[in-house]
Amino acid sequence: MIIVMGKSVTQEHIDHVVEIIEKDGLEAHISKGSTNCIIGVIGDERKLDVDKINALDYVEKVMPVQKPYRRVSREVHPDNTVIDVKGVKFGGKDIVMIAGPCACESEEQMFEIAYALKKMGVRAFRASAYKPRTSPYAFQGMGVEGLKIIRKVGDETGLVVETEVMDTRDVETVAKYVDMIRIGARNTQNFDLLKEVGKVNKPVILKNGLSTTVDEWLFAAEYIMNEGNQDVILCERGIRTFEPLTRNTLNLSVIPLVKKLTHLPVIVDPCHAAGKREPIPYLAKASIAVGADGLLIEVHNDPENAMSDQAQQFTPKDFEVMYNDLKKVALAVGRKLV
Amino acid sequence: MIIVMGKSVTQEHIDHVVEIIEKDGLEAHISKGSTNCIIGVIGDERKLDVDKINALDYVEKVMPVQKPYRRVSREVHPDNTVIDVKGVKFGGKDIVMIAGPCACESEEQMFEIAYALKKMGVRAFRASAYKPRTSPYAFQGMGVEGLKIIRKVGDETGLVVETEVMDTRDVETVAKYVDMIRIGARNTQNFDLLKEVGKVNKPVILKNGLSTTVDEWLFAAEYIMNEGNQDVILCERGIRTFEPLTRNTLNLSVIPLVKKLTHLPVIVDPCHAAGKREPIPYLAKASIAVGADGLLIEVHNDPENAMSDQAQQFTPKDFEVMYNDLKKVALAVGRKLV
Amino acid sequence: MIIVMGKSVTQEHIDHVVEIIEKDGLEAHISKGSTNCIIGVIGDERKLDVDKINALDYVEKVMPVQKPYRRVSREVHPDNTVIDVKGVKFGGKDIVMIAGPCACESEEQMFEIAYALKKMGVRAFRASAYKPRTSPYAFQGMGVEGLKIIRKVGDETGLVVETEVMDTRDVETVAKYVDMIRIGARNTQNFDLLKEVGKVNKPVILKNGLSTTVDEWLFAAEYIMNEGNQDVILCERGIRTFEPLTRNTLNLSVIPLVKKLTHLPVIVDPCHAAGKREPIPYLAKASIAVGADGLLIEVHNDPENAMSDQAQQFTPKDFEVMYNDLKKVALAVGRKLV
Amino acid sequence: MIIVMGKSVTQEHIDHVVEIIEKDGLEAHISKGSTNCIIGVIGDERKLDVDKINALDYVEKVMPVQKPYRRVSREVHPDNTVIDVKGVKFGGKDIVMIAGPCACESEEQMFEIAYALKKMGVRAFRASAYKPRTSPYAFQGMGVEGLKIIRKVGDETGLVVETEVMDTRDVETVAKYVDMIRIGARNTQNFDLLKEVGKVNKPVILKNGLSTTVDEWLFAAEYIMNEGNQDVILCERGIRTFEPLTRNTLNLSVIPLVKKLTHLPVIVDPCHAAGKREPIPYLAKASIAVGADGLLIEVHNDPENAMSDQAQQFTPKDFEVMYNDLKKVALAVGRKLV
Repeated sequence: MIIVMGKSVTQEHIDHVVEIIEKDGLEAHISKGSTNCIIGVIGDERKLDVDKINALDYVEKVMPVQKPYRRVSREVHPDNTVIDVKGVKFGGKDIVMIAGPCACESEEQMFEIAYALKKMGVRAFRASAYKPRTSPYAFQGMGVEGLKIIRKVGDETGLVVETEVMDTRDVETVAKYVDMIRIGARNTQNFDLLKEVGKVNKPVILKNGLSTTVDEWLFAAEYIMNEGNQDVILCERGIRTFEPLTRNTLNLSVIPLVKKLTHLPVIVDPCHAAGKREPIPYLAKASIAVGADGLLIEVHNDPENAMSDQAQQFTPKDFEVMYNDLKKVALAVGRKLV
Repeated sequence: MIIVMGKSVTQEHIDHVVEIIEKDGLEAHISKGSTNCIIGVIGDERKLDVDKINALDYVEKVMPVQKPYRRVSREVHPDNTVIDVKGVKFGGKDIVMIAGPCACESEEQMFEIAYALKKMGVRAFRASAYKPRTSPYAFQGMGVEGLKIIRKVGDETGLVVETEVMDTRDVETVAKYVDMIRIGARNTQNFDLLKEVGKVNKPVILKNGLSTTVDEWLFAAEYIMNEGNQDVILCERGIRTFEPLTRNTLNLSVIPLVKKLTHLPVIVDPCHAAGKREPIPYLAKASIAVGADGLLIEVHNDPENAMSDQAQQFTPKDFEVMYNDLKKVALAVGRKLV
Repeated sequence: MIIVMGKSVTQEHIDHVVEIIEKDGLEAHISKGSTNCIIGVIGDERKLDVDKINALDYVEKVMPVQKPYRRVSREVHPDNTVIDVKGVKFGGKDIVMIAGPCACESEEQMFEIAYALKKMGVRAFRASAYKPRTSPYAFQGMGVEGLKIIRKVGDETGLVVETEVMDTRDVETVAKYVDMIRIGARNTQNFDLLKEVGKVNKPVILKNGLSTTVDEWLFAAEYIMNEGNQDVILCERGIRTFEPLTRNTLNLSVIPLVKKLTHLPVIVDPCHAAGKREPIPYLAKASIAVGADGLLIEVHNDPENAMSDQAQQFTPKDFEVMYNDLKKVALAVGRKLV
Repeated sequence: MIIVMGKSVTQEHIDHVVEIIEKDGLEAHISKGSTNCIIGVIGDERKLDVDKINALDYVEKVMPVQKPYRRVSREVHPDNTVIDVKGVKFGGKDIVMIAGPCACESEEQMFEIAYALKKMGVRAFRASAYKPRTSPYAFQGMGVEGLKIIRKVGDETGLVVETEVMDTRDVETVAKYVDMIRIGARNTQNFDLLKEVGKVNKPVILKNGLSTTVDEWLFAAEYIMNEGNQDVILCERGIRTFEPLTRNTLNLSVIPLVKKLTHLPVIVDPCHAAGKREPIPYLAKASIAVGADGLLIEVHNDPENAMSDQAQQFTPKDFEVMYNDLKKVALAVGRKLV
């Protein structure tokens, strides 16, 4: 950590900062230039309270040098983490397709879609039983009844199943029914929820928030891992920008950078940012090309009559066309889409 | 609602859209121009499922005309809502100062600050017992012990007290101890939490999220009101932009527009966006000038040794200087700061 | 165009709006609902002054239905425009690589890079003689001397050459020396410059601004085409968001949507958004996968000692590795990288 | 400047960086910690090429300590700069109102507005002869004819007059006709234009761009000052954010911070960000409260029939009401609105 002192700093001020640094077991290196006095901190700077030093009136700026998170960092775990969910491996050479409807609506709907996907070779299935909706008047999901259907689909088809959890009170129940738990964009910094999924024994798909920075996203993963659960899969789902043409801006730019910072698998959900089916095949190809370890795609047997996200869900038939095209791009970058 | 049909639309498509509209008890007006066919919807368009129509491939665009929320809207409640919390009135002619430490740290700290504020004439007191922190390694708050101290401060000083709630499981407990409940920026769209505070009988201060639109913020208030609790106070706390100079950009621009859209009181927290004490007095003056109904300011007896937000908390002495300056601005816009 | 009248509208107000509409030779359709009166405009709405209607106090909202630009629109030109620059075709089946140094620094540097690229099969060459720099103290480019070198490189190697123009006074000169003119992100809405390049007979590469919307970007192309020059190639180069990890966010999301709105070729510059070499190969692959018609990549014989953009320029050797990888992705999406 | 070396750095790498630093006449301080080697640069770091060091593969991060601009900086000019334009003083205790129509449309229009404003006590007059418009089909301004009218208004009324310049070729002419030159948001980083207005002898009002950072804005001022013209007045006019409710977000948050960084006067244009008249009086009050040294407000004798910005221009009568209210806020913050 580098501490830049203000112009009118005194020796007393410098001594006070050094004292704070040394109290935490770190070492201070002082460099006095013609215009500024700079104090470098040697040691594990995460022990130091940045905010406390930053609050001093005679301190101009505090610049951290080390990354503040630990468990998510590739520094402490240089190799890729491969998360094995009943034989489906995230973070290895394979790119994993997770497909299924936005919401679980009925047993018939779910089995029709699941069997269609299974026949194409898809191995992981998504469906929400709890729906975060902007309006309280929109469909809020089937709840526990939905969870039971999802489990039944998983058991009968052999697909790995995942679903979203939104409330700390539901975590234990959700973990009982599904193979993977999803945290949505509105809960990326719902810290109590993160802690709760950190205590269960199921892999967690963690989406970024609409305006979380990469650092905040990685810290959210750290919250989960800090409670014991090491199986976190990051999922990029778009960010909010000034552009009105798309619902959100899919932030593919950060994928290679995130993969450099962390050892965790990173997948992409291109559907929610697009908001419409049309650009999704292009965005899915780009996601694979940019290095994603998996995709999350919405497929519905009857999109027009779906209870949510009607415009961005694919029919199984249209999905299959895209799926086959995506496999070619995966091969072109030396990987395999499963 | 206006539905703009695509270029290659057929009569069959038009009939299908009209059918959907009429099924929901609304009326369709068709206008065929040289380049586009437009269908206008007459009636309460909130009954209609926008997404369903938007999902049709031959529909180009759906443009809502009416505001989609109900209870928060000034259309249904033309007069300002005035929320009376033990005699402190939000939304009337008075502008209410809510001051106090970022976090409840000890009984001594709390009483020292509370009595200092009370002496200056401040009537509402803030302090957090549960702290949302980016890092899992940062101070997470005193929990129930903190709630008890906050209540004690309220009882002994007569100040109205408020605190933040983050977890659905804590709502009942928090509501028992404080006079007002605060929902922070990371939980603006934590829908289960919103529903839960909608069921209790205490006013709720609802902050905007770092990238929620005004519509989403008002919908969040609608979630609370839809469960029964009508006492919602909106609190602007800054948004995330590209500018690195400030932690967040305090969005004062929207205050007059939000006040036009809704009858609810709107207050401003200038501290979290600023991140540093220095600009806060200016931002607080601007908040009053732009029409805010109250302010939320962090005051600590020993900011340097505070357990969080050290850089943005005021000493009681500095706070008093600002408080007196703010009163002059309030008078200049025909109001009174209490 | 749809005009939504305010709540307290009178018949007189409606008559006034209808009068404005009819004065411009358009037709007005009035629909009165229970809550709102809506006026639909039939005809070429681009004739109408939106702002004038929007300015009326009793008008709540004006919603355009038609796209406001003409020449850039795919509506008026359904097929892709293919721009042929001395045999190098933009907008067809081929994806065109444009490579070369950030800035023209000397004849030696330029020829060394150009011949290395030519040997690999690259056909289009980039280099700037005028440099837009944030600081007035940074290298501002070689000016006319640089233009002469660029032309010499084009003549001797047979590569198609392009360069940036920043000042209206330089347009004629620049057009004389190069085969294609580039407009950078800071000049996307420099309207006088756009008009000036619209008058010359050379294709124009038009970058989006750091926060221009797609509509504004297409309007910028319209400015050029409106003066006579129909050969505009759009170039996505990243937008400004809140994320500090990347210099800019490469907005690949909009490529498929822009290609739907316009018939013009769309290429991508992944270098300036990345700011560092490391993620560029991934972003370049993603650009091809998402549908780009070309790429703009910085290559320098000695990046460390380059006079600008040192961190994001490739050595010819590293570029060749990437170039070959990119060709595979192009084939996977049914195209060919030249 | 602090240079953080990568994990796998060698002594050779360190020596190479030290060599670069010393070649530019600066001193290097090396601190080796357990995890990182950090090199501190002592001396005037503006002499050093940050990009060159940043481009080295074994350098992880370069963190500037000193502000990179010189002439705009309060460090080199601790007192406020007061710019005197024919007796109207910007940057002193007075807050200056600049009012007038968006565009110069005719002599009659201009004189009617100017005399109305003069009567109220306004001393500075705005009007554009060159109009930057998103669409090439919109009114582009009266050009030189407009300039002549503006000068005539200045001469006959005694008001100080300003206008916008957009093209380097017009700078000399514009400077001849007006008392102050305005650079609009789309030209904040039109570097050739900045250099050109830096050569004339008239004060320049420099708006921020829609997504320029404060540092870029100050560098734009530095471009002007570096050519000789020291009279720059910064003008905040809003930034682009994700919020659709307002045209732009007026960034009042940065005013106190900008005033701390620079000695130049800072004024605010609340009209363009608002886009509608209604919120402008609130935003204008907030601008004064937050510390602005002046305001730029659009006033038109017949807003509905104005040729641009119809929705955001005030009638002289409505303007007068606002003007009087604003004077009270100015007094409340210890200043005087003229």
